[in-house]
Amino acid sequence: MLPSTRFVTLPRFAAQGERSVTFPKGFVAAGVATGVKKRGKLDLGILRSLRPAVSAATFTSNAAAAAPVRLTRESAACDRLQAVVVNAGNANACTGKHGLGDAARMRLLTAQHLHLPVELVAIASTGVIGVPLEMEKIEPGIAAAAAAVKPGGGEHFSQAIRTTDSSPKRGALELRLAEGVVRLGAAAKGCGMISPHMATMLCFVTCDAALDADDWRRMLIAAVDRSFNRITVDGQESTNDMVVGMANGASGVRLGDTGLRQLAEALDALLLSLAVAMVADGEGATKAVRLTVDGARDAEEAERIARAVADSPLVKTAFFGRDPNWGRVVQAAGQAVGRSAPAGRPPGSGAAAVAADVLYEDLALVRGGLPVSLSESEQERLADIMAQHEIDVRVGINGGDAGATLYFSDLTHDYVTLNAEYTT
Amino acid sequence: MLPSTRFVTLPRFAAQGERSVTFPKGFVAAGVATGVKKRGKLDLGILRSLRPAVSAATFTSNAAAAAPVRLTRESAACDRLQAVVVNAGNANACTGKHGLGDAARMRLLTAQHLHLPVELVAIASTGVIGVPLEMEKIEPGIAAAAAAVKPGGGEHFSQAIRTTDSSPKRGALELRLAEGVVRLGAAAKGCGMISPHMATMLCFVTCDAALDADDWRRMLIAAVDRSFNRITVDGQESTNDMVVGMANGASGVRLGDTGLRQLAEALDALLLSLAVAMVADGEGATKAVRLTVDGARDAEEAERIARAVADSPLVKTAFFGRDPNWGRVVQAAGQAVGRSAPAGRPPGSGAAAVAADVLYEDLALVRGGLPVSLSESEQERLADIMAQHEIDVRVGINGGDAGATLYFSDLTHDYVTLNAEYTT
Repeated sequence: MLPSTRFVTLPRFAAQGERSVTFPKGFVAAGVATGVKKRGKLDLGILRSLRPAVSAATFTSNAAAAAPVRLTRESAACDRLQAVVVNAGNANACTGKHGLGDAARMRLLTAQHLHLPVELVAIASTGVIGVPLEMEKIEPGIAAAAAAVKPGGGEHFSQAIRTTDSSPKRGALELRLAEGVVRLGAAAKGCGMISPHMATMLCFVTCDAALDADDWRRMLIAAVDRSFNRITVDGQESTNDMVVGMANGASGVRLGDTGLRQLAEALDALLLSLAVAMVADGEGATKAVRLTVDGARDAEEAERIARAVADSPLVKTAFFGRDPNWGRVVQAAGQAVGRSAPAGRPPGSGAAAVAADVLYEDLALVRGGLPVSLSESEQERLADIMAQHEIDVRVGINGGDAGATLYFSDLTHDYVTLNAEYTT
Repeated sequence: MLPSTRFVTLPRFAAQGERSVTFPKGFVAAGVATGVKKRGKLDLGILRSLRPAVSAATFTSNAAAAAPVRLTRESAACDRLQAVVVNAGNANACTGKHGLGDAARMRLLTAQHLHLPVELVAIASTGVIGVPLEMEKIEPGIAAAAAAVKPGGGEHFSQAIRTTDSSPKRGALELRLAEGVVRLGAAAKGCGMISPHMATMLCFVTCDAALDADDWRRMLIAAVDRSFNRITVDGQESTNDMVVGMANGASGVRLGDTGLRQLAEALDALLLSLAVAMVADGEGATKAVRLTVDGARDAEEAERIARAVADSPLVKTAFFGRDPNWGRVVQAAGQAVGRSAPAGRPPGSGAAAVAADVLYEDLALVRGGLPVSLSESEQERLADIMAQHEIDVRVGINGGDAGATLYFSDLTHDYVTLNAEYTT
């Protein structure tokens, strides 16, 4: 089952599947409890392809990248992977050379237990920063997970990679294409320290189509750009973000150009539905907003305006309060435009582009830079819109024809409580 | 009386004065209630110099600058001003041509009542966005304020320019210089929509030294750069920010080079104490943090890192929770460094500079990129530091020798409550 969102429409050739990453043929997985997380929660997962798979991966751009990111970034350069080991509860970040050694040992043990070459194993971690891994718990966990991998193990794997996620995030699609039937699966985690440019999030994607590594990489990177790089909960980019995809060809179906396009379309829908689920499950969030900026002078300006609005704590608290406070949207957009004044001209003074139109769903609140007077029935409609769990917001700029879309959550008391009380 | 802060040390030649903007000779002021604000609160102020003054001003860089900003930006280009009229409760922003007309009428009426040329009157507004000014209340307010200006009126003026400020922000200094005694005064407002690059803030500065317009402008802009442009409450830049300074020469004291340097030093201290007061009074804030970044590769990188840390909701909620969560500081710094990777290299992968040292006051929590083990007494000291109202944080980067300083507030439940419930 895919997470439910009105922001994603499934292609007609796609049907929902089960068990996430183990829905595609030739993948097995497991999740076990090592004791790193309290109360016997699952906290270590292994995902394995039964044969070597072409692989693609993207990583955090945070300069303080964690040890597992550094290791996997090296091995992923080879375009082939066969397994992933993931632990939750400890990020193995800011742990120096010792942390790199622990990550290497996790990878080595996983490879040994699965009888695979080390270079075919990726490793990911998520959790607290700056605390050494409890290897005495991790090591037996790896042995147990390696022994437990099975075709239906995707559900346990999805559970094991969670941190503060309120529920596991996974989905699977079955694609009936001219070339034959192929399958996609994904398991993801993430709800805080979430921002464009790879957020605090992990996602593992499986596919049983027979693909060239270049094709798989291209479609995975494009899908990540349109999904996980388009969301923000708190503008914060983690030290541990990672998306790893494996396509193992176990379906025996090799795709032509049309099939590749269709697979890419389905992959977009799958990853976007997981990305929106991360926003909806953002720490303390009550809402997911899809923000579309258009009319900017170039893509870079559109992106900067969208991020200024989506990360504004004033905009985010207004959505929490169900207050259609478009003034804060115009202010945040104007701030981003102001900073992009042409060289040699004072910021703001010469900017041609200011938020000219603001629409919440189909209701215009600002037109041509001026407030719109709403009728009584329109005010009722606006109150209904502000009560929705998913809201479409459009900001029209008066500058050009470039656009950008971001998905963001509101800022609530629960966010403050979670993050003031969550301790290192 | 200046706002109290340990982050500012007064020069030895300076003593605190009274009545803010009317402490310097030759300035009169008033504050009246027009009825725009509820419950008879003061909401319109006039500040007047008894003779034309050399002036300097800085403005928001927000592209959606409000009508009063647009008008005053034009007239301030002339380097001479003699009066300022300010209304609080309505920002006259996003109000189109009609708003520009209202602002022009406010300026004209003030000039007429004070018997001054229009071009010597500056105008400022603060409050809600997108609502027309209630001119039927503003107009008699201007008449009443113009009639009420008096030497001791600085206190009422400070009251009248407040919006959500919990208390008026003002200060005055008397400088005993070799050339003679001169005086500085200032009244400011601001506590939300506050960020570097001119925040939602207004500040009016008076001085009775005899100065060249160029000298006054240079020292005012430098002082604003080191104070109001160094603070952030929520990273949001208002449509209405303005700092206006008038030096009227009423002391009869003309300063030499040393005197000018000393005046500039005192002006720095005065504006920084008001800027820190804005942070300490940030919406819902319980703390003011002085963040110093050093070791960056250039000033631009140092600034970007400082802003990433100061505006991180995870860092801000940790300070609210008194949690010394240095991992979030390292993460935010790493995010900013990652985005500044050299052209052609993947973000993060090639960055030389990562947060190497993190100190809270004199206590090192991270050294050389690794956590420091704290003794029991150091842990007690850390708990004491986290309970302080003003905290010094230093982040050392491993890249070069550029630095930046920012002052920021924490993110609290009261911030969310104020901004989810404050309505347009």
